[in-house]
Amino acid sequence: MTRPSRSAERIALKHGAGGRAMRRLIEEVFLPLATPVDGVGLSALDDGAALRVGDRFLVLTTDSHVVQPIFFPGGDIGRLAVCGTVNDLAMMGATEPLGLTCAAVVEEGFAREDLERVVASMREAASEAQAPIVTGDTKVMGKGQLDGLVLNTAGVGFAERVVTDAGLSPGDLLIVTGTLGDHGMAVMARRHDLGLLGDLKSDVAPLNGLVREALRAGGQDVVAMKDPTRGGLAGVLHELAAKARVGIVLDEPALPVKDEVRAAAEMIGIDPLLVANEGKAVLGVRAGAAERVLAALHAHPLGRRAVVVGRATAERPGTVILHTGFGRRILAEPEGELLPRIC
Amino acid sequence: MTRPSRSAERIALKHGAGGRAMRRLIEEVFLPLATPVDGVGLSALDDGAALRVGDRFLVLTTDSHVVQPIFFPGGDIGRLAVCGTVNDLAMMGATEPLGLTCAAVVEEGFAREDLERVVASMREAASEAQAPIVTGDTKVMGKGQLDGLVLNTAGVGFAERVVTDAGLSPGDLLIVTGTLGDHGMAVMARRHDLGLLGDLKSDVAPLNGLVREALRAGGQDVVAMKDPTRGGLAGVLHELAAKARVGIVLDEPALPVKDEVRAAAEMIGIDPLLVANEGKAVLGVRAGAAERVLAALHAHPLGRRAVVVGRATAERPGTVILHTGFGRRILAEPEGELLPRIC
Repeated sequence: MTRPSRSAERIALKHGAGGRAMRRLIEEVFLPLATPVDGVGLSALDDGAALRVGDRFLVLTTDSHVVQPIFFPGGDIGRLAVCGTVNDLAMMGATEPLGLTCAAVVEEGFAREDLERVVASMREAASEAQAPIVTGDTKVMGKGQLDGLVLNTAGVGFAERVVTDAGLSPGDLLIVTGTLGDHGMAVMARRHDLGLLGDLKSDVAPLNGLVREALRAGGQDVVAMKDPTRGGLAGVLHELAAKARVGIVLDEPALPVKDEVRAAAEMIGIDPLLVANEGKAVLGVRAGAAERVLAALHAHPLGRRAVVVGRATAERPGTVILHTGFGRRILAEPEGELLPRIC
Repeated sequence: MTRPSRSAERIALKHGAGGRAMRRLIEEVFLPLATPVDGVGLSALDDGAALRVGDRFLVLTTDSHVVQPIFFPGGDIGRLAVCGTVNDLAMMGATEPLGLTCAAVVEEGFAREDLERVVASMREAASEAQAPIVTGDTKVMGKGQLDGLVLNTAGVGFAERVVTDAGLSPGDLLIVTGTLGDHGMAVMARRHDLGLLGDLKSDVAPLNGLVREALRAGGQDVVAMKDPTRGGLAGVLHELAAKARVGIVLDEPALPVKDEVRAAAEMIGIDPLLVANEGKAVLGVRAGAAERVLAALHAHPLGRRAVVVGRATAERPGTVILHTGFGRRILAEPEGELLPRIC
């Protein structure tokens, strides 16, 4: 039997899941779009692009949102879209968004009331982040041609200094700004009607204010940033490790995971480290700056549970090792379908 | 019987068709997102936003593309997405795109080969427009949750001077840069398998080079620009007239429409003036500059059939009057479902 040729392949759910299959699809299908730019372009596959304009960088980012259900505990697709784009800008160093776009694709028959709720939620999140929504687009697809609503937001902002996801060196420390897995588990609980998991709530929030404080405290010593959305912390650490060609060693007992998230994850049978977050960041910092940055994070309402969870090493570049307290194991790159339509 | 309350209403195809229903939905549901900005923001409902940065304006625009079928004579969804965004930037005065985004939402089971074709086409159009694609996003929805592929492109570029769609004054002349209705009729012909209409071809093309020449020739005397996509020429003229509070008088015999487009439009029973274009612009120019601008347009491959089609008047503000050669009639604002998923 012969393997079907690559061009006869079909897109699968795993190609949107934030793991290895998605990375490969993007590298093989979308990377040919890349052209050289002065700054960070498509080929960097970072949270966005950063284009040199005079002595600053214009950061540009985009995300389509397909979360299902569109209303979930702690948020909805509108809040998710605004925060997702604000956070991608912030992860590149642009913490004061200049403008966001809002492009809605709506299914015929969608309740106008629900659309109004989503818009109200976008408005609130945009105001929280001080990120003006400045332009938009509306399309309608026929009944049955789209499951509800797809929302795309793009955003622009200036960064004095770009923080990429490739900046780690051996010895740098890794900070997560709070508990892990909240968003993904809240959506899954709502989707599966897990009533007993009533305490689960998405963490979806705009991180630009928090990141601004971290950058103010850490300056040049903040060397890498990324938000652990699809693919969760595991996905982000693999990207950080691969791009900087370092190893990463994690201290598992230090990882902040809420009890209810851990319980739900066990019930569904998924590692919380693979689950999407929408209000958390992973920061790589020079060891000497970690205390300063942590103090700044702790002083912000969204960073109270910030903690150092690991460090970059020269050994085993591209690999993420988990110290469990009893021994060590390799944390694999996310693979498979994971959680479809989680954001 | 009581009319259902507005909040119990459901989204209909007409809400995406580029006519009156879409305008009302946007005004009623999305306009609450608008906040004051220094420049042109959401409340202007123009082709994009223009945000003051120093002594220039950063233009930001977005469009989602849902065209069906995704491959049509003369182009495909990829070329459409790139050109649509390049053209929206150009219509605001930003003719040298700094960067475009590419966000794909793909249905599970979509052929990878088709995705590769679409990407190749985006690459070609981006190169034609000298518009680098600098960042992207990929999502996958389950089989049956999306009809194929939705492609969003956003774009940014600087404009020294912003040209809005509200700049007409009585006496200004209206130029269209070429034949009308080509894109919409080509898609419809392909959709309905109208074999005999084999000559129909979409006009989808990046207009930034053409617009650059027009602005170079006309300078400050180019006072309004808009591309007649959904809703066609009729939709655009209604917007130009309403926003500038002028009347518009059109010379029907001057309107350039290809024979095959006219034939197909008659067969399907639609006015070509309501049909989408994807490679044409409508320019409002001071009367004294019209010859200069026309000469510049004619010298460009995409502007050979550019022609003055009408003028702005002080009478009947907001109204578009068609001089037929035998008499006059009012050209109504597009209404109803028109052509769903035409772009």
